[in-house]
Amino acid sequence: MTAYEIIQKKQRGEELSREELSFMLEGMLRETVPDYQIAALLMAIYFQGMTPVETYSLTDLMLHSGEVIELNHLDAPRADKHSTGGVGDKVTLILAPLLAAGGVAVPMISGRGLGHTGGTLDKLEAIRGFSTSHTPEQFRRQVEEIGLCITSQSDRLVPADRRLYALRDVTATVDSVPLITGSIMSKKLAEGIDTLLLDVKVGSGAIFRTQPEALALTHNLLSIGQQAGINCAALLTQMEQPLGFTIGNWNEVAESARALQGDWPQDLREVTLAQAAVIFQQTGLEPDLAAGIARAQRLIEDGSALAKFAELVAVQGGDAETLQDPDTHWQPAFCQELKATQSGVIERLDAREFGLAAVALGAGRRQLTDQLDNSAGITLRIKAGDTVQAGEVIATFYADREPSPQVAARLQAAVTISDTAAALPVIQLLVTSDSELDWRAALQS
Amino acid sequence: MTAYEIIQKKQRGEELSREELSFMLEGMLRETVPDYQIAALLMAIYFQGMTPVETYSLTDLMLHSGEVIELNHLDAPRADKHSTGGVGDKVTLILAPLLAAGGVAVPMISGRGLGHTGGTLDKLEAIRGFSTSHTPEQFRRQVEEIGLCITSQSDRLVPADRRLYALRDVTATVDSVPLITGSIMSKKLAEGIDTLLLDVKVGSGAIFRTQPEALALTHNLLSIGQQAGINCAALLTQMEQPLGFTIGNWNEVAESARALQGDWPQDLREVTLAQAAVIFQQTGLEPDLAAGIARAQRLIEDGSALAKFAELVAVQGGDAETLQDPDTHWQPAFCQELKATQSGVIERLDAREFGLAAVALGAGRRQLTDQLDNSAGITLRIKAGDTVQAGEVIATFYADREPSPQVAARLQAAVTISDTAAALPVIQLLVTSDSELDWRAALQS
Repeated sequence: MTAYEIIQKKQRGEELSREELSFMLEGMLRETVPDYQIAALLMAIYFQGMTPVETYSLTDLMLHSGEVIELNHLDAPRADKHSTGGVGDKVTLILAPLLAAGGVAVPMISGRGLGHTGGTLDKLEAIRGFSTSHTPEQFRRQVEEIGLCITSQSDRLVPADRRLYALRDVTATVDSVPLITGSIMSKKLAEGIDTLLLDVKVGSGAIFRTQPEALALTHNLLSIGQQAGINCAALLTQMEQPLGFTIGNWNEVAESARALQGDWPQDLREVTLAQAAVIFQQTGLEPDLAAGIARAQRLIEDGSALAKFAELVAVQGGDAETLQDPDTHWQPAFCQELKATQSGVIERLDAREFGLAAVALGAGRRQLTDQLDNSAGITLRIKAGDTVQAGEVIATFYADREPSPQVAARLQAAVTISDTAAALPVIQLLVTSDSELDWRAALQS
Repeated sequence: MTAYEIIQKKQRGEELSREELSFMLEGMLRETVPDYQIAALLMAIYFQGMTPVETYSLTDLMLHSGEVIELNHLDAPRADKHSTGGVGDKVTLILAPLLAAGGVAVPMISGRGLGHTGGTLDKLEAIRGFSTSHTPEQFRRQVEEIGLCITSQSDRLVPADRRLYALRDVTATVDSVPLITGSIMSKKLAEGIDTLLLDVKVGSGAIFRTQPEALALTHNLLSIGQQAGINCAALLTQMEQPLGFTIGNWNEVAESARALQGDWPQDLREVTLAQAAVIFQQTGLEPDLAAGIARAQRLIEDGSALAKFAELVAVQGGDAETLQDPDTHWQPAFCQELKATQSGVIERLDAREFGLAAVALGAGRRQLTDQLDNSAGITLRIKAGDTVQAGEVIATFYADREPSPQVAARLQAAVTISDTAAALPVIQLLVTSDSELDWRAALQS
């Protein structure tokens, strides 16, 4: 068996065996197979794809390239959610403490932002003192003690994914369904969970812009979850416009803190409650989605979700007091308003363009080594479908340094005002291994 | 402009500009673009191809990555031939001195064997003392003095091809028409020639097994030659069975020396004379192919081609005396006969399998660092279409060390004996930028 033969086999569109995939992954980690051969294989996979069997082998090999967290001894169900990435998507910050407050253990290994989407770790690290670094032992202990830990991928967990992702990121092979699947699922399976909800975004700000593409990824992910023996479901949610009103690290922490106090925009509320409801049903804590939504609402109303968030922040070294009145802890040096150029209805707020503008402001990275500006961000005053008057402020954007004038132009171009706007459902489908249900229908069943 | 964006553009199937290709090639040579990004680009090119404009840009950039030999001051036409690689293809060893003896300057940069095909340099180096290393100045001077030089690619000529080929060779991206075209044509154009004949092999032992695939490569090569302003033509020749009776380095030198003395097998004679005739016509030294063949035959019969070969060997440091009776200079330690398992007609001698068996004997390389056994080789006693009796010797194979028993089994399996065999024409087509002529028709026109 040689790397050359394996590359050539995939190039011809044939299925690689577990042994062949193992040869490449182990070779990559031991540096007996050079990066240029891995890069060639990744590009061949990009063009030829992988079968479900192959994708599962890849995922399982990546999973076992490091340690796997063991949490079987817990009484509580162990659940996580994964979002394929969106703009303004701060759901995890609200959902994770809500679930933990509601009796679900949440062992969560999360990621950083790259490209136009933000990352949960970057947002949490905007809280003064918050640490996202744990050994696997510390991670397990914190889940045992407070039912929740949000941490970064350590060198000891899924090292193959780290190496592979770094190469994909520089060889234009990120957007490959089997490679995305292997990367997501290996990290999630390493957490020791028994339940997983996938939030697959669709639209301008998502990896995939159309529902058929998003569904192909969804079924790939679900198939791996099923083969791995965990309870796996997915929501397809809309990512044409940013989620909620805020984009940016501290800005999104602040919106999440307000949401946990019951003050949240409609779309953010809808997506968060839906995810909570599906997980409560998946784990058997509630019999149906309606009961799951009611349970989630109670956990917000009685303050237990907020209390769990404060506990998480304190345990991970963060200053929980800053969350009580988050706006007082935010004094960006630069601030500019974006105004409506005409009167009408907001037809479109292009999520990808808003995400890229936030990166340009300093809220995200162009390269892995970039320093983030935690004060940088955008706050929307309106959402798609709202009526505006010419000259009305539609957004404010912030940063610690004055940004290039191109940012304002980019934001202006990302806003379309017309006569009417079609209302897009925020949550489209609930998908499991054997069904695709319209979300409204699912709620009533 | 970033390497990432360029990879992604080709991945989407778009045409790369000369500036983008230059960014990647220069980055590769200056090591500002890492090999894994070049490997990803090569695999994207493998799948998405290149337009004629792109292929010409690639070729021209590779050509100008180093020095270009200048031979415009010669009175003689300056011609070369390039074979896409076959098994037992020793035509260059006969043709090059024949052309030089016939008034054509032959500045030839040749290659080594890798995979199942041999290389001209490896064969010549089997002659004791023969050196294939020249500076560009030495190369030019030798062409001026004796009308012929056969040398290896130096660091100063087409360095981009060296680096790119080394990467293609380990990433399974050798078999890409635009990459093959760029590699062949940049090296040939660096020689300072005005005339080029391409021998594009078709069949089991060739890069491409079918005529349509071979024709696609042919037209790509001819298009580059035309854009570069040289006189370019191609012959499509059959490579289902080995060419001539011998495979192996010294073995092929010996057959070439006998051929220059007028003792040669029909297929080798036919291919060599055809190539000589096309070049004599291309360069205007003869008015038509029939006259070209007659001129070539005279150069064999009067001993001038042989004398030029002896002169070449002597000038390049080789022991020309060993060529007078080559078999006495060949005492391999191991020798085994292959016998017909049944009586009948030889239907097939699979060229690729014979080539791979020769590599296994030590005549070729599995890796670039492998040492060659110059005595290793195979001598056929029959060719396709011949009648054999069960038990009759059909081939003998040689090496300095006893080979694995698998070699005999491989050779046995490469021979098909049946009731009848279809005679395949050795030379199929004569192709120029604007015509494809059956060879027999071309001969009569």
